[in-house]
Amino acid sequence: MWNYIAPVRDMQFVINELLDAPSEWQKIPRFAEVDGDTVPQILGEASRFATDVLAPTNADGDAQGCRLVDGHVITPAGFPAVYRQYCEGGWPALACDPENGGQGLPQLLNAAVYEMLNSTNHAWTMYAGLAHGAHECIRAHGSEFLKSTYLPKIVSGEWLATMCLTEPQAGTDVGLLRTQAVHVGARPVGALPLGEQRDALNERYALNGSKIFISGGDQDMSPNIVHLVLARLPDAPAGSRGISLFLVPKFQGEHHDQPNGVCCDGIEHKMGIKGSATCVLRFKDAHGWLIGQPHRGLAAMFVMMNAARLHVGLQGLGHAEAAYQNAHRYAAERVQMRALPRRTESMATTAPAGTPAPAAGPAASPIIQHAGVRRTLMTLQAMVQGGRALAYWSAHLLDVADHHPDAARRAGAHDLVALLTPVVKAFLTENGFELSSAALQIWGGYGYVREFGIEQTVRDSRIAMIYEGTNEIQAIDLLVRKVVGDKGAKFNLVLDELRDEAAACNASPKHQSIGSALAMGNALSELHAGLSEATAAIVDDAMRDPELPHRVASDFLRLVGLSLLGVLWARMARIAAPKAQSDAFYRDKLTTAAFYFDYLLPEATYRLALLKRGRSPLPWLEALE
Amino acid sequence: MWNYIAPVRDMQFVINELLDAPSEWQKIPRFAEVDGDTVPQILGEASRFATDVLAPTNADGDAQGCRLVDGHVITPAGFPAVYRQYCEGGWPALACDPENGGQGLPQLLNAAVYEMLNSTNHAWTMYAGLAHGAHECIRAHGSEFLKSTYLPKIVSGEWLATMCLTEPQAGTDVGLLRTQAVHVGARPVGALPLGEQRDALNERYALNGSKIFISGGDQDMSPNIVHLVLARLPDAPAGSRGISLFLVPKFQGEHHDQPNGVCCDGIEHKMGIKGSATCVLRFKDAHGWLIGQPHRGLAAMFVMMNAARLHVGLQGLGHAEAAYQNAHRYAAERVQMRALPRRTESMATTAPAGTPAPAAGPAASPIIQHAGVRRTLMTLQAMVQGGRALAYWSAHLLDVADHHPDAARRAGAHDLVALLTPVVKAFLTENGFELSSAALQIWGGYGYVREFGIEQTVRDSRIAMIYEGTNEIQAIDLLVRKVVGDKGAKFNLVLDELRDEAAACNASPKHQSIGSALAMGNALSELHAGLSEATAAIVDDAMRDPELPHRVASDFLRLVGLSLLGVLWARMARIAAPKAQSDAFYRDKLTTAAFYFDYLLPEATYRLALLKRGRSPLPWLEALE
Repeated sequence: MWNYIAPVRDMQFVINELLDAPSEWQKIPRFAEVDGDTVPQILGEASRFATDVLAPTNADGDAQGCRLVDGHVITPAGFPAVYRQYCEGGWPALACDPENGGQGLPQLLNAAVYEMLNSTNHAWTMYAGLAHGAHECIRAHGSEFLKSTYLPKIVSGEWLATMCLTEPQAGTDVGLLRTQAVHVGARPVGALPLGEQRDALNERYALNGSKIFISGGDQDMSPNIVHLVLARLPDAPAGSRGISLFLVPKFQGEHHDQPNGVCCDGIEHKMGIKGSATCVLRFKDAHGWLIGQPHRGLAAMFVMMNAARLHVGLQGLGHAEAAYQNAHRYAAERVQMRALPRRTESMATTAPAGTPAPAAGPAASPIIQHAGVRRTLMTLQAMVQGGRALAYWSAHLLDVADHHPDAARRAGAHDLVALLTPVVKAFLTENGFELSSAALQIWGGYGYVREFGIEQTVRDSRIAMIYEGTNEIQAIDLLVRKVVGDKGAKFNLVLDELRDEAAACNASPKHQSIGSALAMGNALSELHAGLSEATAAIVDDAMRDPELPHRVASDFLRLVGLSLLGVLWARMARIAAPKAQSDAFYRDKLTTAAFYFDYLLPEATYRLALLKRGRSPLPWLEALE
Repeated sequence: MWNYIAPVRDMQFVINELLDAPSEWQKIPRFAEVDGDTVPQILGEASRFATDVLAPTNADGDAQGCRLVDGHVITPAGFPAVYRQYCEGGWPALACDPENGGQGLPQLLNAAVYEMLNSTNHAWTMYAGLAHGAHECIRAHGSEFLKSTYLPKIVSGEWLATMCLTEPQAGTDVGLLRTQAVHVGARPVGALPLGEQRDALNERYALNGSKIFISGGDQDMSPNIVHLVLARLPDAPAGSRGISLFLVPKFQGEHHDQPNGVCCDGIEHKMGIKGSATCVLRFKDAHGWLIGQPHRGLAAMFVMMNAARLHVGLQGLGHAEAAYQNAHRYAAERVQMRALPRRTESMATTAPAGTPAPAAGPAASPIIQHAGVRRTLMTLQAMVQGGRALAYWSAHLLDVADHHPDAARRAGAHDLVALLTPVVKAFLTENGFELSSAALQIWGGYGYVREFGIEQTVRDSRIAMIYEGTNEIQAIDLLVRKVVGDKGAKFNLVLDELRDEAAACNASPKHQSIGSALAMGNALSELHAGLSEATAAIVDDAMRDPELPHRVASDFLRLVGLSLLGVLWARMARIAAPKAQSDAFYRDKLTTAAFYFDYLLPEATYRLALLKRGRSPLPWLEALE
């Protein structure tokens, strides 16, 4: 009943037409061999894996959950077998460095693959999803010994990885963590060349402490697990400047067969992603190796921050896509109440010819004909396709920032993606949850029942608003750190996108007629003025009232998200306009763009108003009696 | 860890000060004996029952769920025992008619009790919650035989009741139902007086068909169950005008010990309220009695519609209250990140003296000091307390509409509560879910874990947006049926509330200074003008574009909800102002009223904008390929 068909056509539109990525890749040596055929080939194979192999394990995985038996996690039936197929398909290597056995493909393609995996089984994807970040982190900061020992195993998928940050008293505030690491004496680690052995010995530490909320902290899918663990050295300063990063394998020794002191003490019973084992890990004299410099563990970990947050945004997107297409199909089948007759005169421009209008005859209509259902579905469609454009844009910018031969292009992409990343993470995960809940409503009572699938989507999608930095932390990262922090200088990159797209729209007379309430160009010009003024005012007022940006950070992030989707929908409409006569796909893009400007962009004005209201004091609260 | 303390002080404020209910009761003969002592007595006893007896079964009930064993439902451990205590306490009888053994207390007090029950165990309350509606329905439309046989058992709580409406193909569109009822021949039903026996025989029918989503369709809490079943007679017209209502007991016969043809074929596995058995019921030659006239079943059922929808609104309120107070307590205890220093100058009017400001010393602060957390908690506080005022107002209007000696007062209350009811149902349940989810965020990762309680609240609260008429149906009921349907005539009752409260605020110079962005009176005047104009425009345009109100119905309902809370917060602020100097409770009301006007009421302007945007066409959607 629940079903998933990868939106390959729309993914290709974003990659090829909106971002024009293939021609950009031609200018980047690392991607020079990625040609026009690569995109459909990768998307087609990923689509088959997601739909045929992964999707069938989703509902059962939720029903079964994980079990902890004698200190070992048993994942739901089928999860390990699916993971074997995933490795055999070479998926872990997709965007990894060729020198470690990776395929070296763009992050952009990886993003599309991840969207599909998250649409079909978020819980399972948790296991596979952490490997790429670990790869990036070890590659950037690990010693030669760590790189040669661990990277090939991670790239092939033979071993999986975790990130061990949180402790009971240290969640958002990672600076409060207490896990201890002490340097231990030399002990041979095997038949390594002398230099590497010395490295390995010198970097060896013993870790003691407890970590919670460790996704994949234990599992039965890979024979070894590479834990990246934040801990304190004995001489560490207090707070976040005294944190070091360690690699702690589940099994150590020359043959990786000696158990290390890492115990899984429990797994959480969660609202969703029940197939993902969320572990309490205890490190008891566990041997680990330092990654990067002492006390610089957070910096070493930041290397994977943008990609990790993009991936969480893709979870929100993946859920919303699955919710959208299933709700759409259900609404076309479910018959309840007679719909009002269709007003053909005002719909003529947006509706394909030949659609039968509901006659006076039937007692009830497919609910897709009811106005409220159509509005919900159009909201999902506009937010999902717009969100895809935003997420893929960010992924593409990561590729440019990492690999473009032109330093100025790299720097520009780096600065813009730093601003986009918190928006992708928070805006797309909030939408993922809220749109899934909106979709649930279309099923009525059936939506609340397990076998119809959507309630699992609502539960699973909720976590993405929390982990990898809560959405509130993303908003503070954007407004306080990245906008107010440099007095809005870099934020001009976002404002310029609004200004340029408004100009492009206004330069195209034909385009001015799209959007019935307000021409897109004018709407974007207004938005540019409003956002510029509001940002300048906050930067200015924050000097006198430092709490102001904290009070309105979430409104600001949402405003930026809505504005960026406005830019992207206008751009997509400009691309689609010349082709709309002959192709329903492009006609649909025009309709959806108009809907976005008519029905969804007005929220931006509301958020602008709240930025002003945020000057009002926010009461100090007492503990309840 | 999860805890509930009934907000008795705030409930009393709404009942006694905002609604001035006790002095109104003095004018109503049925309530003349309800004196000032009754309110605290009932609230105190209900609070003890909810906290001490009911609350401990909530989390376990969710974890255990219901089981179907040999066709019989087993509810979670403790549920039947709690129900026995509930009956011993006389709670089922609270608002029932004295002539059937009821206590005849106001619906308003019943509403407060229901809020507490829903705050502590929504799933359990599902069983008890349907009895009052059945009582009202049988009382209004049942024969003497049905009244004398069933009402005393329902009032005492000995027997519970269900409402059997939905069928697989007939959800929102109840007119599509297919369950059949045929008149059956006479058979003695026991030692009844001759007249009653004739009634009983004449009214006897055999029912065949299947019903789904029947809450409490079977259970182990009462020895008999009174099913109210919608079905079709052989000569019934098609659609909703051909539906009749029947009373079908689980056990029949003189001694109520002969099984009737009602089988529980299954129970649903749901997202939440897992302790509530949602049953598939099959009626196989089940004997039942007609309630009311043939083909007039929906009308007979409508008698309990307002109260039933109010009760669902109270579920949303109850969840939001529980989420609010638990999040508040957690935020005061949880220490993460250092908060910005408190700005005493601008806070002076809102903060109690002596609150220690966070010094530069500690590395981290209770998160209740962080601006984002305070804004979330204030949003919960303002919406919960405002929602309580709205729900209790509706309950009070039901009492006036049913029992006031003055016919004009009855009619006025009846018309106003008809407008308020869909708002209470949809606005409060949407808030219940969304505020619970907002509260979850305060726990961070812990919020996603079962043992912290809030994730159950999010799951449980979601159903209230669906049943008893989806929130979309409520919005259509309000705007299409009740506003456009009479060209806005009765809606003037709502507009008058805005106008009158604005005038009252503007007449009080002192009051004009509350609300830092805009004086409350001016804000309400603006809102009155905007809502009046928008309503008139929709009524007018709907003649040319009948789909318009369907496109914007949900925005309109939300706008009315926000407007009514504006009226109520202004009124509460006027009441609190003279007492605020000496009592922190009233000072808190002023602070919260200002917060509502500053941070929450701006959404009304956004919804007004969407009502205009709703003139844009909404695309017709095709089935996905």
